[in-house]
Amino acid sequence: MDIAILNIGDELLAGKILNTNQFDIARKVTPLGHSVTRALVVGDDESAIVDALESILGRAGSSRKERSSPDVLILTGGLGPTRDDLTRQAVAAWLGVEAGENPEALAWLAEFLRKPVEEIPPGQRLQASVPAGTDPLRNPAGTACGFSFASGSTRVYAFPGVPAELDAMADLHLLPSLLADRVFLQKGLWTWGWSEGDQRQALEGFVLPAGFHFSSLPGDRGVRLSLSGAFPVPELEVREAELEAAWKALTAVIPPDCLVDLQGLDLPAAVFARLLEQGATLSVAESCTGGGLGALLTETPGSSAVFERGFLTYSNRAKVDLLGVPGDVLEVHGAVSEETALAMAKGCLERSGAAYACSITGIAGPDGGTPEKPVGTVWIAVAGAASAMSSGLVEAHARRFRFRGDRHTVRRRSALSALNLVRLFIQGKSI
Amino acid sequence: MDIAILNIGDELLAGKILNTNQFDIARKVTPLGHSVTRALVVGDDESAIVDALESILGRAGSSRKERSSPDVLILTGGLGPTRDDLTRQAVAAWLGVEAGENPEALAWLAEFLRKPVEEIPPGQRLQASVPAGTDPLRNPAGTACGFSFASGSTRVYAFPGVPAELDAMADLHLLPSLLADRVFLQKGLWTWGWSEGDQRQALEGFVLPAGFHFSSLPGDRGVRLSLSGAFPVPELEVREAELEAAWKALTAVIPPDCLVDLQGLDLPAAVFARLLEQGATLSVAESCTGGGLGALLTETPGSSAVFERGFLTYSNRAKVDLLGVPGDVLEVHGAVSEETALAMAKGCLERSGAAYACSITGIAGPDGGTPEKPVGTVWIAVAGAASAMSSGLVEAHARRFRFRGDRHTVRRRSALSALNLVRLFIQGKSI
Repeated sequence: MDIAILNIGDELLAGKILNTNQFDIARKVTPLGHSVTRALVVGDDESAIVDALESILGRAGSSRKERSSPDVLILTGGLGPTRDDLTRQAVAAWLGVEAGENPEALAWLAEFLRKPVEEIPPGQRLQASVPAGTDPLRNPAGTACGFSFASGSTRVYAFPGVPAELDAMADLHLLPSLLADRVFLQKGLWTWGWSEGDQRQALEGFVLPAGFHFSSLPGDRGVRLSLSGAFPVPELEVREAELEAAWKALTAVIPPDCLVDLQGLDLPAAVFARLLEQGATLSVAESCTGGGLGALLTETPGSSAVFERGFLTYSNRAKVDLLGVPGDVLEVHGAVSEETALAMAKGCLERSGAAYACSITGIAGPDGGTPEKPVGTVWIAVAGAASAMSSGLVEAHARRFRFRGDRHTVRRRSALSALNLVRLFIQGKSI
Repeated sequence: MDIAILNIGDELLAGKILNTNQFDIARKVTPLGHSVTRALVVGDDESAIVDALESILGRAGSSRKERSSPDVLILTGGLGPTRDDLTRQAVAAWLGVEAGENPEALAWLAEFLRKPVEEIPPGQRLQASVPAGTDPLRNPAGTACGFSFASGSTRVYAFPGVPAELDAMADLHLLPSLLADRVFLQKGLWTWGWSEGDQRQALEGFVLPAGFHFSSLPGDRGVRLSLSGAFPVPELEVREAELEAAWKALTAVIPPDCLVDLQGLDLPAAVFARLLEQGATLSVAESCTGGGLGALLTETPGSSAVFERGFLTYSNRAKVDLLGVPGDVLEVHGAVSEETALAMAKGCLERSGAAYACSITGIAGPDGGTPEKPVGTVWIAVAGAASAMSSGLVEAHARRFRFRGDRHTVRRRSALSALNLVRLFIQGKSI
């Protein structure tokens, strides 16, 4: 189906709020096989809304249309209780009807507010009003009622603009109708360190079964790959088998070290899961990231099972005091060096009693770079017991990175790359 | 001026990329006194782009227009070298002309690539092509050339969609024409802990001088307030005085503790500046934030002057080992308590040798809450020498918070609230 979006709100046009609603709707409908073909934003202005409706749908009731109308039009915003919320009136004006209170919507509002109808203030009560002849849509997450109607071959939905409310209403009212009687199938995973060029080459011979959608979404946690499709119930068994086969073929061409987790976990969650499986703990010793690695490790609920302590050793003195890095290592090789990174990881391992330790030391910039160690140079080391058999023996490896980008980017890439090295190390892979 | 935006790109409609370009353009032009009145997104499709141009500008060359045209139309995207980059062709088709290589644009491209023209591959070279009769616009940050032309009373700019390139080109080509011969004046600051309701009430009597724009942008670092305006050079002295007076009036009604920094610094930068002024250092002891406070403190370049070390004491054992928190304090009061927070801060102060120490201990959720200590309960303490005169005496204060929201929100609010308490404490204010 061909889907259009009309976002309504002065705050979107004035740069007060980043418009995430277009993005969120697109992410919901695209995997189901539908396409957003155009998206508009207008302000809280009745004639601008009416103009936008005409440009998308033509004149209400007119059979002559200048452009092909979408199958679905989603309006967001302008349904709140304040006087700049004008979507109801504008749609009513475009339809040539009045907006009025809907008894069903009023009952939902009373239930949501846990108040008898008589105690709802008039401003709030306005939110139970919809254009005459349209169907009210319950809002499970807020007070603004939505509504829906057909215009020619287009089904129109009006949802609130508050992202959490839009999300809940789209799931409740929009997705079931887009799914029709089909079932949605999806499998996804994260890759790390697999370049777009390599991906394209590796997937050249990859044949997607009919009806499935492949997506590759780059983000700061790597690239999220997914296969998805929506199918009628009778086809389900066949489609699931097709998805399974395509998934096997896809995962087989990903270099194993680049595949973060077969179950679809991202880097922090995958490291957490591997440590949990081993019943092992991890400690960190951070310099340039200043806590960024610890913050990632503790974002997963229950992380206390695997993360017990960490050291933020920003200065050389802290590296000596807290981790026992020898002063001459710092003097001879410098704070940003293989030797210092290894000494930090080993000291962290020893002083924390954890099964594994990870250290980061680098130059995040913008200043502090030299010709030999330019800004973006980062050493990351991981240490652990060499094997369960040989207690006391420590194995440690370090790797040098050269990250591009600003201070924020260098620090973020450092923390995520460290997680990736930990992931490889604790699975016994070379780093 | 009335400004319209047309973003072009399949990846925007498919939910692959969040459209930040609308937002970034709006944030540039709104403070200059201009308004974005509508924004559209269409895919990489020649007829969709032509349709969008017609809906905004009418038919090219036609004097009859269905709707009032904007003063400025900004196109973004579709100027790259791949076959789905169709903006040049679509604009040419709409104008009824051909697109062709522009010698000036080709010279810029060669200069940017540091290659002789003959060595530029044909695909790259395509980016020096513009619709006949339009003016090429130099791209200082990339290879895709932009272009500009007048259509009736509308000035149209076509810029690349890559945010950094769009940003550079808007600054170079768009802003000077929007400023005309005016000078842009602006003053801004951050507030923390000043509710929207209180702000509205306090600013009720506040009179904005004519031509100035007030904005209040909430974000996770507090609320950014600003006054801005663009004025002709001869008025400058008068306008600067007006801005100064309005600024004084504005800052006078902000509760002093809620005003982060008069120079406009945000919380991390303000804490850094205050510590630097005092020549003092700060250490941190983090439990539920797991490094989030340290990461904020070290995001400012040069932070090693004030931040030397920190302790991530996620477990009780780490709190005892690394900070000397007495075991019976943990046993009697629990890890999330005033007593533990104070013991953490004092232990951190003593063991780090820093001038100030800050501790955070709380329940980030989603599990771990109890009726007495629900999820979102966080204790934050700050400690420092009682006065320069009485060395050895430590002053320490703790405060209890109850944050709403998910794990991420609780952790983020905890780290930022800790920075705010540090800010108040080191200025000798009660927390």
